[in-house]
Amino acid sequence: MDSNNIAKRKQNNKAKRCKVCFEPSGLKTEVSLGTVLLEAARKAGIYLSSICGGDGYCGKCKVIINEGQFQSRPTTLLTPDEVRENVVLACQTKVLSDMMVTVPKFHSLETSQILMDTDAHRFSELAGEPAGTFKFDPLVQKLCLEMSPPTVQDHTADHERLYLAIRKYIDASIMQTGFRIMQKLSKVLIQANYKVAVTVGRRGGTTEVIEVEPGNRCETNFAVAVDLGTTTVVAHLIDLTTGRTVDTEATYNSQINFGEDYIRRIIYAEENDAFDEMQNRIVHDVNDLIVTLAERQKINFQDITAVICAGNTAMVHFLLNLDPRRIRREPYVASAGFVPPIRAAEAGIQINKRGLFYCLPSVAAYVGSDIVAGVLTTRIYTKKGISLFVDIGTNGEVVLGNRDWLACASSSAGPAFEGSGVKHGMRAGTGAIEKLTIHGGGSVEFKTVGDAHPVGICGSGLLDILAELFINGIIDRTARFISDGQPRVIEGEEGWQFQIVPESSEHREIVITQADINNLLRSKAGVFAAIWVLMEATETGPEDLEAIYIAGGFGNFLNVRQAVTIGMLPDVPLEKIQFVGNTSIAGAKTVLLSRKALETAEQIAKSMTYFDLMSHPGYMDEFIRACFLPHTDLSLFPSVKLVAEKV
Amino acid sequence: MDSNNIAKRKQNNKAKRCKVCFEPSGLKTEVSLGTVLLEAARKAGIYLSSICGGDGYCGKCKVIINEGQFQSRPTTLLTPDEVRENVVLACQTKVLSDMMVTVPKFHSLETSQILMDTDAHRFSELAGEPAGTFKFDPLVQKLCLEMSPPTVQDHTADHERLYLAIRKYIDASIMQTGFRIMQKLSKVLIQANYKVAVTVGRRGGTTEVIEVEPGNRCETNFAVAVDLGTTTVVAHLIDLTTGRTVDTEATYNSQINFGEDYIRRIIYAEENDAFDEMQNRIVHDVNDLIVTLAERQKINFQDITAVICAGNTAMVHFLLNLDPRRIRREPYVASAGFVPPIRAAEAGIQINKRGLFYCLPSVAAYVGSDIVAGVLTTRIYTKKGISLFVDIGTNGEVVLGNRDWLACASSSAGPAFEGSGVKHGMRAGTGAIEKLTIHGGGSVEFKTVGDAHPVGICGSGLLDILAELFINGIIDRTARFISDGQPRVIEGEEGWQFQIVPESSEHREIVITQADINNLLRSKAGVFAAIWVLMEATETGPEDLEAIYIAGGFGNFLNVRQAVTIGMLPDVPLEKIQFVGNTSIAGAKTVLLSRKALETAEQIAKSMTYFDLMSHPGYMDEFIRACFLPHTDLSLFPSVKLVAEKV
Repeated sequence: MDSNNIAKRKQNNKAKRCKVCFEPSGLKTEVSLGTVLLEAARKAGIYLSSICGGDGYCGKCKVIINEGQFQSRPTTLLTPDEVRENVVLACQTKVLSDMMVTVPKFHSLETSQILMDTDAHRFSELAGEPAGTFKFDPLVQKLCLEMSPPTVQDHTADHERLYLAIRKYIDASIMQTGFRIMQKLSKVLIQANYKVAVTVGRRGGTTEVIEVEPGNRCETNFAVAVDLGTTTVVAHLIDLTTGRTVDTEATYNSQINFGEDYIRRIIYAEENDAFDEMQNRIVHDVNDLIVTLAERQKINFQDITAVICAGNTAMVHFLLNLDPRRIRREPYVASAGFVPPIRAAEAGIQINKRGLFYCLPSVAAYVGSDIVAGVLTTRIYTKKGISLFVDIGTNGEVVLGNRDWLACASSSAGPAFEGSGVKHGMRAGTGAIEKLTIHGGGSVEFKTVGDAHPVGICGSGLLDILAELFINGIIDRTARFISDGQPRVIEGEEGWQFQIVPESSEHREIVITQADINNLLRSKAGVFAAIWVLMEATETGPEDLEAIYIAGGFGNFLNVRQAVTIGMLPDVPLEKIQFVGNTSIAGAKTVLLSRKALETAEQIAKSMTYFDLMSHPGYMDEFIRACFLPHTDLSLFPSVKLVAEKV
Repeated sequence: MDSNNIAKRKQNNKAKRCKVCFEPSGLKTEVSLGTVLLEAARKAGIYLSSICGGDGYCGKCKVIINEGQFQSRPTTLLTPDEVRENVVLACQTKVLSDMMVTVPKFHSLETSQILMDTDAHRFSELAGEPAGTFKFDPLVQKLCLEMSPPTVQDHTADHERLYLAIRKYIDASIMQTGFRIMQKLSKVLIQANYKVAVTVGRRGGTTEVIEVEPGNRCETNFAVAVDLGTTTVVAHLIDLTTGRTVDTEATYNSQINFGEDYIRRIIYAEENDAFDEMQNRIVHDVNDLIVTLAERQKINFQDITAVICAGNTAMVHFLLNLDPRRIRREPYVASAGFVPPIRAAEAGIQINKRGLFYCLPSVAAYVGSDIVAGVLTTRIYTKKGISLFVDIGTNGEVVLGNRDWLACASSSAGPAFEGSGVKHGMRAGTGAIEKLTIHGGGSVEFKTVGDAHPVGICGSGLLDILAELFINGIIDRTARFISDGQPRVIEGEEGWQFQIVPESSEHREIVITQADINNLLRSKAGVFAAIWVLMEATETGPEDLEAIYIAGGFGNFLNVRQAVTIGMLPDVPLEKIQFVGNTSIAGAKTVLLSRKALETAEQIAKSMTYFDLMSHPGYMDEFIRACFLPHTDLSLFPSVKLVAEKV
């Protein structure tokens, strides 16, 4: 075989596609021959545990090959029995044909990190379209300019001619042009006979000429808005000429192997000098999303001219490789809260190489730009009455205020409602129990995401369980199991637990343990204590609250009644409580599409008073008082009093 | 000899320095062993003809080695006689010991490009210090900031903390920070305990944080102002903390081999696709000047944070590699007249890698930023009375106006007063005749630059000669030689010529030919016609002129009386005429040191009305009328009338 043939064969192999099907989910993907199985799983939307990130030494990414040819590197992490049963490490195995692979359940239950891309989609769908109360005036826009070419009488230089033409369309008193654009300007103008498409971007008070192209490219200008979550990264593709959301995509934050919350990731990065790697991972995730969106919509990267992001302060620091170390230790400060627009390429984000990267402003180390986006989206800064905004994720951020003042705080109560620290907890992915009722006779009715086999419990389901156990007298006001005469309360390895789904040939057993309940209780107590500290500090009573907005990744069926029943939210009439979904990306889109909205977001961030709960003298007391169902002080929860007294 | 020894020997050789002395100038330099002789000559400040730029095929850089060891590459461009007499091509010869070299006179006479660095210094000395009428507010400045470190109570992020501190010192409503600076910001702040030196630069309406360093580096901040001339490039090193000019340096524009005027260079670049090379050469010249200044003053490049330049439009285009092609052909437009600040590194200029490059604004393709600098420096834009500003170089640019209006034009009359197109013309370098009187008996008295042996005639000398020949009746009003009874008017190879210096063992003969005189006449006529077109268009009579400013590289002894006598300037009382030297670099320095001056320069550039003489119906007639001494219309020159009638 001569070298030409070898090259040809390599080409053929590369071109050869293999179908890989994963059981029991049935998710499928198609990959090139030779692709690593871990990568194929990722592509199919399957999250496999992998602490080492694919280096083959943690032994977590075990799967079973049912059918198909593969090639695995030898490893000491598999027993001879496992090897006999075709168990492999996915990260050490190459796909050599169509395959059928079984993903053991431990991947999707024990780590509580198992969400599929299809589910992440659901988060993205929660976001409403931009509020529409701001004038359409995108941060980056493409203008179609028809200039008259210079003559001996009209000898204005090309660059000034361009500025004059731009200023006929938009308000741009201070302008700047990138050097490479200046160098090619005359050539483009002459070739296009002075009919050009000019992309301009706003950078602070300056309007920058980002790109100059022939005039037939006026209608193609896109941006990507990103919600930079600790667990999920959501991206929306926006047509900047219309403001329309063209497509959405989401993926997992691939930093997750370095810690479930960002504090652990900062520690990891610090101990392992892995800040660059942290950045690479999150940048890679964002680029992956952009590639997926661009390919699906058949858009040239050249035509994506802006990326805007909102997220918690740590995640923004990781993305830009700003120093996040003092976020986790005194004095708990960010390196930057207001990140000026930079060239996206500088951060490694792959769009038009002169495209801009924007970031919404943040308030403090623990109140990020996602919260500012939430305030912008819910418009509580415009209202006369007082509103409460609660974003429940890894931390529970709380904002209280109106058009005159805004107070905020962050409770580090832990991510129990995200499924973390809960035995069968999971995010709102396929098979997650998202809605649950316990009937009088002790029978349990539930609904799962995608009406699939139940595989775990997501945020709204956990909230329901805690409330239903309480209402039905299965746990007492201290959230301890009352075992007497409760058929589903059984003793497990870790003490008492409530059986939601019994084990069967089809289902794994799904339970909620006393430890789970304690975690959930602490989470809700943390959130309520944060709310109460802000309310007391501002002398706001529950009767003063005109609206409560809950944002976060609970799922679609958040039962706001139950949130009051367990004492997570103040006891107000239910019609005042509204679940608003992903306000982070909604706010990012609003800002992207209006300069005025960016200014407003900056004003919001500047005007918010941050309460540091760690150093707040009353917080710990409030927290302890809230570690009851609904609270030690029942007078705060008149609507729950009857239930509580019965228990 | 093992490899260590070889390396050591190489090191030694490199360290070994050779003294090279050039005759007859006596200029000396010291170079490393092995240096090419052409390079050594350049370093000594000797300009050797070299059309090929050192490639060894033009054969122009012949010198004679009197003493010392050298190594020459074989060449067919030397005759056996030359080789025997130790004639070598300087570009093909390496210095191997101390040497004594003779530079043949043809280098310094025939090309009329022979100026030495020492002479270029003289240009630079012509520049006065900045006018001082603007508030000291440099475009780039270093601020010493002492911030209080963040605490739990004062959790403002580092980046915003920095902005707050900067705004205590300077007005900077809109700010921007480079991404790399943001990334290192926290580290520097913590290390320096929040006492830092911050370099900020003005970019349009935005103030950019260029550098953040520990607080002990506050007093070291420099900039370089550059006058980008077609022939000479002058640089001044400015201490930005005081505004003082620390040092000056000048060199030759090394594009000169591609054409003496910029139109020829544009043609060359276009025909040979040599725009990159044009840029490389001029950038190299600027970098050479910066290196020289920095080394002499023992300044770190890191501490040079800005470069500002003024120059003709074409030269600025070459420097930035903007498209200059339509400068030389219809519609005679620039690619950019107002060049926004860019990072100097983007243009290849080697200062602090985040340092800024500024360029004064220009008016039109033929009225560059050097002219705007001249208007700024002479302050004619502030005066009630009408002033005339005339810059005589390769072109003769003319500005007429006052605080209410400004008109400008450029005559393409050719660079005769720069010595070009004049047989023994040269720039104001050592040995140039810069002052000359013809006495009644026909004897000639002259003064040379540096009181050296006369080797040619520079601008002020040429002006004197033309006037003296006319006053003494040696040429008539059409500038033709009256040969009768004039002992020094002799017939040469090219017709009649006036012998200024007879040939001797010491001197080469120096003459002025009829062709030379015709060139000078056309130059002065071009300038006067430009002045007259502007005066007529604005209905300005000579009696309305309150001041005439002459700028350019004439030398130190410009006789303004003679400039009127030959009819180059309008006939006004002599006290109204002032030679102002290099106003280009003076204006650049003024702008560098005051934001307000930059704004003023921009207003000047915008407000100037450009008259295109090429298409002006009356210009050619005026030019022809001015091709007499002093003019066809003697009534315009009452003070010269008596002389003229005598002739």
